[in-house]
Amino acid sequence: MIGPGKADLLEAIRETGSIAEAGRRLGMSYKRAWTLVETLNATFAEPVVESRRGGAGFGGAALTALGETALSHYRRLQAKAARASAAEVAALRRLRADSAERK
Amino acid sequence: MIGPGKADLLEAIRETGSIAEAGRRLGMSYKRAWTLVETLNATFAEPVVESRRGGAGFGGAALTALGETALSHYRRLQAKAARASAAEVAALRRLRADSAERK
Repeated sequence: MIGPGKADLLEAIRETGSIAEAGRRLGMSYKRAWTLVETLNATFAEPVVESRRGGAGFGGAALTALGETALSHYRRLQAKAARASAAEVAALRRLRADSAERK
Repeated sequence: MIGPGKADLLEAIRETGSIAEAGRRLGMSYKRAWTLVETLNATFAEPVVESRRGGAGFGGAALTALGETALSHYRRLQAKAARASAAEVAALRRLRADSAERK
């Protein structure tokens, strides 16, 4: 439903106030950014991004309240997952060819 | 270094005793399965898969001790991450359009 790419896009939309600008920042085409936003909006019970296209040369986008809620759940999910798996990640790193601990 | 696809491949190699058969089971080309194994073997300090090609009509592959260790760290990592993030995943699911809890 939401993954790292979509979460980054939501965050960039919040920061830039623009779907096009958010996409550019993430190296995504305009079309790709819009498609992801449409997918997200269809996934959730209400839109997560609201956009105003055009209008006296002004267009813009912002996260809705639901968008903010979904993004913050996702960031907490990532933080908790990273914290919980840190010891296993460290153990895997120590098995790597380039691990300083083995050199 | 190791992700869900590579972990599944290691597990399938352990179960089938064959890189080709493991790849087939995962819907992967022979070449793709071999490339992933080579990448994994180069990533870790020692090979994670050992293979015997041919030899009186017999070829086979098995995880090395390091391969077993890496795979079990990765599976624990996944389990811990899933457990730690379960509440956030549930919260996100409740925000979805198709959530039974909202219907």
